[in-house]
Amino acid sequence: MRAVIIAVGSELLGTRRLDTNSLRLTASLEPYGVELTAKSVIGDDEAELARTLARSVDEVELVLVTGGLGPTADDVTRAAVSRAFDRGVQVDEELVEHMRRLFASFGRDMPGVNRRQAEVIDGAVVLSNSRGTAPGQRLAVGGASVFLFPGVPRELEKMIETHLEPWLQEQSGGGDRGLERQVVKIASLPESTVEERIAPAYERFGRERISVLASPGEVKVWLAARGSEAERRAELEEMSRAIVELAGGAAYTTDQNATLESVVGALLSEAGRTVTTAESCTGGLVAERLTRVPGSSVYFLGGVVSYTNELKTRLLGVSAELIQAHGAVSEPVARAMAAGVRSRYGSDYGIAITGVAGPGGGSEEKPVGTVHVAVAGPGEQDVEHRKVRFPGDRERVRQQTSQLALELVRRDLVRRDLVAD
Amino acid sequence: MRAVIIAVGSELLGTRRLDTNSLRLTASLEPYGVELTAKSVIGDDEAELARTLARSVDEVELVLVTGGLGPTADDVTRAAVSRAFDRGVQVDEELVEHMRRLFASFGRDMPGVNRRQAEVIDGAVVLSNSRGTAPGQRLAVGGASVFLFPGVPRELEKMIETHLEPWLQEQSGGGDRGLERQVVKIASLPESTVEERIAPAYERFGRERISVLASPGEVKVWLAARGSEAERRAELEEMSRAIVELAGGAAYTTDQNATLESVVGALLSEAGRTVTTAESCTGGLVAERLTRVPGSSVYFLGGVVSYTNELKTRLLGVSAELIQAHGAVSEPVARAMAAGVRSRYGSDYGIAITGVAGPGGGSEEKPVGTVHVAVAGPGEQDVEHRKVRFPGDRERVRQQTSQLALELVRRDLVRRDLVAD
Repeated sequence: MRAVIIAVGSELLGTRRLDTNSLRLTASLEPYGVELTAKSVIGDDEAELARTLARSVDEVELVLVTGGLGPTADDVTRAAVSRAFDRGVQVDEELVEHMRRLFASFGRDMPGVNRRQAEVIDGAVVLSNSRGTAPGQRLAVGGASVFLFPGVPRELEKMIETHLEPWLQEQSGGGDRGLERQVVKIASLPESTVEERIAPAYERFGRERISVLASPGEVKVWLAARGSEAERRAELEEMSRAIVELAGGAAYTTDQNATLESVVGALLSEAGRTVTTAESCTGGLVAERLTRVPGSSVYFLGGVVSYTNELKTRLLGVSAELIQAHGAVSEPVARAMAAGVRSRYGSDYGIAITGVAGPGGGSEEKPVGTVHVAVAGPGEQDVEHRKVRFPGDRERVRQQTSQLALELVRRDLVRRDLVAD
Repeated sequence: MRAVIIAVGSELLGTRRLDTNSLRLTASLEPYGVELTAKSVIGDDEAELARTLARSVDEVELVLVTGGLGPTADDVTRAAVSRAFDRGVQVDEELVEHMRRLFASFGRDMPGVNRRQAEVIDGAVVLSNSRGTAPGQRLAVGGASVFLFPGVPRELEKMIETHLEPWLQEQSGGGDRGLERQVVKIASLPESTVEERIAPAYERFGRERISVLASPGEVKVWLAARGSEAERRAELEEMSRAIVELAGGAAYTTDQNATLESVVGALLSEAGRTVTTAESCTGGLVAERLTRVPGSSVYFLGGVVSYTNELKTRLLGVSAELIQAHGAVSEPVARAMAAGVRSRYGSDYGIAITGVAGPGGGSEEKPVGTVHVAVAGPGEQDVEHRKVRFPGDRERVRQQTSQLALELVRRDLVRRDLVAD
């Protein structure tokens, strides 16, 4: 079965609001294997909505409409359906009575205009709305089913549960053709590198089942499986294991809710290790990310944002001569910062970052985006260092840098864990 | 002129992502009086997209397409346009060379697959993309203009400025029928307080022209005006002045692009003052926000994230006895942290935060959300302190706390500026 979603309301065509109802509707379709082919937003325009509706019932089998069921002249959905499918409309007096009682229960008289909400399209089934006054409707047009739902999210939410999901269940004979997804998250690798590494999975499982989404410093590989619940789970398990293997140690989680900082936090907790940070161009972003995680006080002791050279010396013990000799953005200074924050503040790991986030401060030798990341590990002599040049603006450079720093810590923890096994 | 927006990408039909690009596009249409009649999302489906495109050029005069311009087989926009309007496609070797240089500047070879991004539709104008590899295209089809833009928001953003807005300007002969909006931003006041204060403006200007949007620690009042450019400007000027006055010193900017941290930064710069931070429960968020602003090294010296009591003592000179007597989350400790970071690191302002962000760590006396913010000002005895209990989860508590801290600094700078006048 294929579906389209149509959200009705001129306010959804402005600059500040998005149709979020469609996300909830989509979530209810997926388990039943219904394929969403398009979604659209239409203003309070009867003719435009009628055209869209007429076209939709020719193209797909399920049309889900939200909004435009209110009592005012702006609410055009009932009239548009009537026009699109050439159906009459009758006021259902029982519904009017029901609404009147609803208003009375709040100590109010029903405004006359609300009678419009009791207009039922010929041949439609009325769908009760236990959280509002506007009932929904369902009608069959040719081979298609059309659902009309209110646009208020909490009313819609309840009506999906009460009216849409049971109907989908009935149609599908149990939801055995459903779709399920799983993610594999990878930090600090370029999208093209990920693509290359996972290429064999495209052949093995089919390209259409794997999609790659990149954001600064992170690539998410989304996997999709269809079939019965058991089949889906088994396939996703197999696919995600394959992707993790192909990624070669770069995948940090297969849990949709996990973040790089939560994974690093869990590894630190498990290993009984602690961490401190010394940041320059990221300005506290790594510390901020580490402490987003509830309970991070177990492993995060503290951090320093040393924007000036003087503070690099005073807070981290980086010698002024070293800064003088190599410049603040340099490998020796990054290493000294990492070792300094680790030993001064008594943690197992010390993360240090110095770089040019831009837009100013770049030079020919050290252009904007040049970053040194150093991680001092539990062993005294253990300092990992990376010099990188990140593309993008200040925000992207900072984001990518924080990813790299956390990923270096993660890899060290994983490596040590393997050694200890 | 009427327009539709079409976002292309199967990922936008899932349950996790919305097309937010359309908001930015809509904002660029409004000042020119272009009416958006619909927007839709189409998957990576060449036939479906071709159908939608063919229909759109019959119905409106401006078709804006985002996404589907990448290098992979999933990226169907060029092919769909070619099919919809029966146009050929040629690889532009100059574009290929340009992309090759772009890759080279990051020390990478251009993957062969990227050649597809240089495919130009017959009769189309190439629109340069200074932030990515996929160029856009503009073509005339009958009486309609079709723009193809990449789906990456920051690439699109720049291309709207460079290619769409100048074109709209040209078409409209100055945008005299448009709608224009302006914002007034207010930090650290509850929405209901803002509503009360600005109530007289509803009567004076009309309720439908003023809308209030609240997020943690911030309220935005949006104002709308129609008419010629001169009329719009004059009205928005009058309205925003009225709102700022009614807000009673709480409005920190009327510039849509300004943030609280950029406003505080500009005030610090102007006053020739510097700042340092000492954070506990916000974990570096205030430092991170201050350093988001390009050029912040002029006034931000550095900061400390003192998650443990020991670091509060070592890095900030807060006496262990004080912590023992009052607890780390207390007014005396917040004040000592602020004075300590200010005097130790030689700044004019010292910001200190200590609190319980949750979800753990709360007690009956100090429930989750309890926060102490202290700001030490330029005068030796000058420490402002606020104790608050913020609602919401960890992230919201941290966000609201960082707003309050920055707002306290802003108000002190404004007050001093007035005194100095």
